[in-house]
Amino acid sequence: MAVMSKGERTRNTILDAAVALACVGGFESLSIGSLADRVGMSKSGLFGHFGSREELQIAAIEAAAERFAELVFRPALEAPRGVARLTAMIDNWLTWVERCGWDGGCPLEGAIHEFDDRPGPVREAVVKHFSRLERELARMIRLCVDTGEFAGNLDVDLFVFRLMGVVMAFHYRRRLMGGSRAEAVTRAAFALLIKESAPQARFNQ
Amino acid sequence: MAVMSKGERTRNTILDAAVALACVGGFESLSIGSLADRVGMSKSGLFGHFGSREELQIAAIEAAAERFAELVFRPALEAPRGVARLTAMIDNWLTWVERCGWDGGCPLEGAIHEFDDRPGPVREAVVKHFSRLERELARMIRLCVDTGEFAGNLDVDLFVFRLMGVVMAFHYRRRLMGGSRAEAVTRAAFALLIKESAPQARFNQ
Repeated sequence: MAVMSKGERTRNTILDAAVALACVGGFESLSIGSLADRVGMSKSGLFGHFGSREELQIAAIEAAAERFAELVFRPALEAPRGVARLTAMIDNWLTWVERCGWDGGCPLEGAIHEFDDRPGPVREAVVKHFSRLERELARMIRLCVDTGEFAGNLDVDLFVFRLMGVVMAFHYRRRLMGGSRAEAVTRAAFALLIKESAPQARFNQ
Repeated sequence: MAVMSKGERTRNTILDAAVALACVGGFESLSIGSLADRVGMSKSGLFGHFGSREELQIAAIEAAAERFAELVFRPALEAPRGVARLTAMIDNWLTWVERCGWDGGCPLEGAIHEFDDRPGPVREAVVKHFSRLERELARMIRLCVDTGEFAGNLDVDLFVFRLMGVVMAFHYRRRLMGGSRAEAVTRAAFALLIKESAPQARFNQ
């Protein structure tokens, strides 16, 4: 890893605090003023790093997306291609909120609801993360077809869609409903999805 | 329907405006002040209806939950018990955001992300809605077992979980990703869930 300059380290510290705030109050709660208080810098110092509130919001979303890539995507790529890699991806994904170092829910999933009806560059940053996530998932699923673990006629996009649903329902059950069964039911749902996609399953699409 | 008093009508008008605001900025954006401006009443007039901001937030969540019951649950009960009723429920659910009369996403789903880590009576109002929703879904699914359309050993809670995921992924695809395929993939996911739960399916749990 390249050595970071002092400016880069400061920027990372600011963004870490920004995502921490967003995990609780949302990215819309971020302002140069609230963040300056939090990191003990002057507003003008912060403006030196981020020219506007919007620029700060986008950089915070990108920082969260980068942490996601670091904790979820990249370690999964070390697993052998096929169901093993897809399973590693899911394992990393289901535990990432605990491991990301921020308190609160998944900041990126929270951003869906904040920005889905607010057109503009912040929304585009959220869409960019989820487009990349769906693209990477589709690639991992196609590799399961290549290894013969999934049926050749599998509808890959439908699998991605169902997988997104499983993870969203997991966060809802775990964080809102507080069910101790959340993880077990999520793993059962994922296992079913895998089984239903096998070449010998009746209901491939 | 009982005739509403003038006070009840005023209260309903206020709550309708409150949910409209929450659909865009969230329930946390609600305040007696912002709402007074919106409905053209004095703050003290609003305090006559809601003693505190928290009371207003709870009443707004209950108003959204009541609209959901009116547009989604109750009409589904007119369909014959079994898969027909469950399908009617899903049809009503997938279209309710368009029919609810508020602009923006599903206010109740948005509230999950706002309040999942904010203990207190507002969160409890959100949990109450989703507990009721899950209970009603479980009842509809058990009726599909009773009619013989679903396998006797079906894991009803797992079905509820997967169904919640399908609807959450639908809102995400439809509202954030803007995919024209959102509705088709959602209906395909729901159809698969039904097929996989049939008595002759291989993978019932």
